[in-house]
Amino acid sequence: EPSKDHEVARRRVENTATEYWYYVRHQLLNLKNEASGNTQLVSHIDKMLGNCQGYQRTLNSDFLKLKSVDGMDEWRKKESQELTNLVQRRFHYLQNPKDCSKAKKIVCNLSKGCGYGCQLHHVVYCMMVSYANSRTLILESKGWRYAAAGWESVFQPISNTCTTKTGTSSVFWKDPKIIEDVQVIEMPIIDSLHPRPDYLPLSFPKDLSDRLLRLHGDPTVWWIGQFIKYLTRPQDHLKQELERAKQKLGFTGPIVGVHIRRTDKLAAEASFHSVAEYMTYVEDYFSALELRNPGVQRRVFLASDDPTALPEAKKNYPDYTFISDPSATLSAGLNRRYSDESLRGVILDIHFLSLCDHLVCTFSSQVCRVAYEIMQTMHGDASHNFKSLDDIYYFGGQNGHSVEAVEKHVKQNEKEIDLEPGDLVGIAGNHWDGYSKGMNHRTGKTGLFPSYKTREKYTIVDLPTYPEVSEGG
Amino acid sequence: EPSKDHEVARRRVENTATEYWYYVRHQLLNLKNEASGNTQLVSHIDKMLGNCQGYQRTLNSDFLKLKSVDGMDEWRKKESQELTNLVQRRFHYLQNPKDCSKAKKIVCNLSKGCGYGCQLHHVVYCMMVSYANSRTLILESKGWRYAAAGWESVFQPISNTCTTKTGTSSVFWKDPKIIEDVQVIEMPIIDSLHPRPDYLPLSFPKDLSDRLLRLHGDPTVWWIGQFIKYLTRPQDHLKQELERAKQKLGFTGPIVGVHIRRTDKLAAEASFHSVAEYMTYVEDYFSALELRNPGVQRRVFLASDDPTALPEAKKNYPDYTFISDPSATLSAGLNRRYSDESLRGVILDIHFLSLCDHLVCTFSSQVCRVAYEIMQTMHGDASHNFKSLDDIYYFGGQNGHSVEAVEKHVKQNEKEIDLEPGDLVGIAGNHWDGYSKGMNHRTGKTGLFPSYKTREKYTIVDLPTYPEVSEGG
Ligand SMILES: Nc1nc2c(ncn2[C@@H]2O[C@H](COP(=O)(O)OP(=O)(O)O)[C@@H](O)[C@H]2O)c(=O)[nH]1
Ligand SMILES: Nc1nc2c(ncn2[C@@H]2O[C@H](COP(=O)(O)OP(=O)(O)O)[C@@H](O)[C@H]2O)c(=O)[nH]1
Repeated sequence: EPSKDHEVARRRVENTATEYWYYVRHQLLNLKNEASGNTQLVSHIDKMLGNCQGYQRTLNSDFLKLKSVDGMDEWRKKESQELTNLVQRRFHYLQNPKDCSKAKKIVCNLSKGCGYGCQLHHVVYCMMVSYANSRTLILESKGWRYAAAGWESVFQPISNTCTTKTGTSSVFWKDPKIIEDVQVIEMPIIDSLHPRPDYLPLSFPKDLSDRLLRLHGDPTVWWIGQFIKYLTRPQDHLKQELERAKQKLGFTGPIVGVHIRRTDKLAAEASFHSVAEYMTYVEDYFSALELRNPGVQRRVFLASDDPTALPEAKKNYPDYTFISDPSATLSAGLNRRYSDESLRGVILDIHFLSLCDHLVCTFSSQVCRVAYEIMQTMHGDASHNFKSLDDIYYFGGQNGHSVEAVEKHVKQNEKEIDLEPGDLVGIAGNHWDGYSKGMNHRTGKTGLFPSYKTREKYTIVDLPTYPEVSEGG
Repeated sequence: EPSKDHEVARRRVENTATEYWYYVRHQLLNLKNEASGNTQLVSHIDKMLGNCQGYQRTLNSDFLKLKSVDGMDEWRKKESQELTNLVQRRFHYLQNPKDCSKAKKIVCNLSKGCGYGCQLHHVVYCMMVSYANSRTLILESKGWRYAAAGWESVFQPISNTCTTKTGTSSVFWKDPKIIEDVQVIEMPIIDSLHPRPDYLPLSFPKDLSDRLLRLHGDPTVWWIGQFIKYLTRPQDHLKQELERAKQKLGFTGPIVGVHIRRTDKLAAEASFHSVAEYMTYVEDYFSALELRNPGVQRRVFLASDDPTALPEAKKNYPDYTFISDPSATLSAGLNRRYSDESLRGVILDIHFLSLCDHLVCTFSSQVCRVAYEIMQTMHGDASHNFKSLDDIYYFGGQNGHSVEAVEKHVKQNEKEIDLEPGDLVGIAGNHWDGYSKGMNHRTGKTGLFPSYKTREKYTIVDLPTYPEVSEGG
């Protein structure tokens, strides 16, 4: 069993090495541009780029070896399973009060005007509030845009004993101290929440924090994944459908999940990324795997709302086996999106994405983030098993996300900002070129800084510990 | 306590990262040369070089943290101490037979026509043969060029009970099977040894191999260091002299040892290296240390046979504190080298070099290699605590040194050679630019290959295990 300090130190080297590679790759591509015209120089830079990629591939493979030595992978799986069991049993306890008529409640309505991933995250946020306040979550889902019959047309009821929002008193969310004794609290969407408690994402509970920091590279995602896991326990018929689809698609590992989000998302929220961009990272993954597993078959599970993505991928990457469900893609079209069929399609796509060994997608899409979250509940620590082409991981409506400087940085140009060890920096994003963007809370300045000179600043919160639920079973 | 697999995996990542840095630095310097004339490009490359150095520094610091987490450094020190005790007690047992008149012996003469380090290594090799054959080593040192009175004018006798080479029969070394029953065997210098047993350097004993591979990044050096440690136990007056010198010089850590070997060595055996070259690596060391230890005083212990080195260093590096004994340097001059005073000088210089936290030198010099060997007996694992400007570590007259390919390599130009996983490559040297030179035993081809695609191929030998000596004490 590795210690927490060991795991933190191990992940730290890995992160530095990853950021180093982003930096080197980006700079060499820049140099190549600047050198254009000088053919000898360009070919020299190209060769260097290829060789650096070789070093990086081997480093990654060495890191994987170090991570899994001494049966640590097995330990991680077991520990994740044990923590999952504990948390799921707490949820079950919370959601099944002895006397529903007296139970304190949180009410959440599924009518948030957005897609499935967004709505799921809405329920997650509500349930986090429930958990933090030891209140049972009541989910109002009749007339759901994805399934008029409601939540239970696909998922198990979130409670067996308590599903109505009746109670002696009821208010909309306000200062927790004022509403402490009110039986029923109705939640707004997270964006309108006021006041905002500290236990919203990205946070995780103190009583589990040592174990989570030891186990996992991103405890905040692991924690969110637990809510998704509880909420989306499939009804038997859905379970069977997922099983049948698995057989029919021939889904099997090793496999990389690619999610290509286009259509309506490109209007305002995200940029277009070509199939080739996604595939660069898929190739990275498989060429590294090939070091350990020569001749491995290159398999990709492809999910998209754009029907042109799959044929393009198949045509340009004939060495790959693409697994995909075109009917899910078709039903994701805007004209058919809010339908029972489309709901099954997106559930299926997210399910298979989450079963993949690695994800390549845009974290601007909640579809991929949900898949990533679920992934964490199934492996020991899959926090590094992804490549996002745009955003870093976030939870829509989250509280501020900060990193802490661990090294001094003197800005090298007007786009950059200074750092002193200990500075807290609100982070806006990673540019995947070695630099992140953020606002230094000490100086008030916003700009770029080398990501490797900072580390995650976790928000660890005091929450109920549910002592009624024993760990064992 | 770390496991052997963990330590092997941890060192592997570290080695890959180090070779990566050699590669990147060298390539960027090349690019800069090629780009000369294009000022913008040159300054861009310069900036990239500086930033890559920053990444490398942090990576090193992260690696150090990972190495020392969970009290692993303390464990290493303890384990090294325990192994040292065991081995030293075996030596003591071997060197003090109950009945010298019946003891089987190896005779070694100190008259090898070379410097102190070279002569010391000659005795080490003799004693390795003694150890492997359970024979007591008899050292003939009267008329020694460094001290006519012999070995014991500075070091403790290597035996308390058995110091004469008398015996019933005596031969010069030949096939061990033939001479097994002969009481006294006289050794030639290693270069003339025939036949050559497999337990010569670079090898280490099987009964300690698991512990050594777990403990140490270079068990072969650790093993050689044990012999040096036994052989050079100082007489009381020398011990006091070393203690006095320590006080007088104000020797204290953190400190980097620099050995600048010039004069006669430059005639045929080594190239000239400027003080600036050595100092580059000293700066690397301290700037990395500064990350963990801001404002650290930069201290260098400088040893050299060239009296111009110290003044040049002091003049050009005013921020550094140089500690050095000019009288040792002066007595190292060729006209005075073989004298009692010069012997004390080189013993003192080697002593302080070995006490440093890090060494920068040319491994072509036996002076620095001896210091590096002794260093290993004092820290847990100091195998990475050096930078050689020329050779990789070797033992003069050693058996072949091979590495094993762990990754395929397709040669990129006529200077390179192909590798297939499993190929054994006799290694000639590391060019410190990411590439090593060697001869692929499978293909018979000699040339360059990326060092990171290979790993050390150890020679682990069956030797007597001295069960009479218990581990405890
Ligand atoms: N079946 C399927 N549906 C998708 C896919 N991508 C997007 N969709 C549909 O588009 C909706 C997008 O809304 P949302 O889940 O909030 O994610 P976001 O808009 O991408 O952040 C999903 O819920 C699906 O209904 C996909 O890859 N497969
Ligand atoms: N005191 C002192 N003597 C040195 C130094 N460098 C070389 N010498 C002298 O030069 C000799 C070199 O011979 P040897 O030990 O075989 O090492 P090599 O020739 O450098 O491989 C040493 O033994 C010393 O007598 C030094 O830094 N300090």
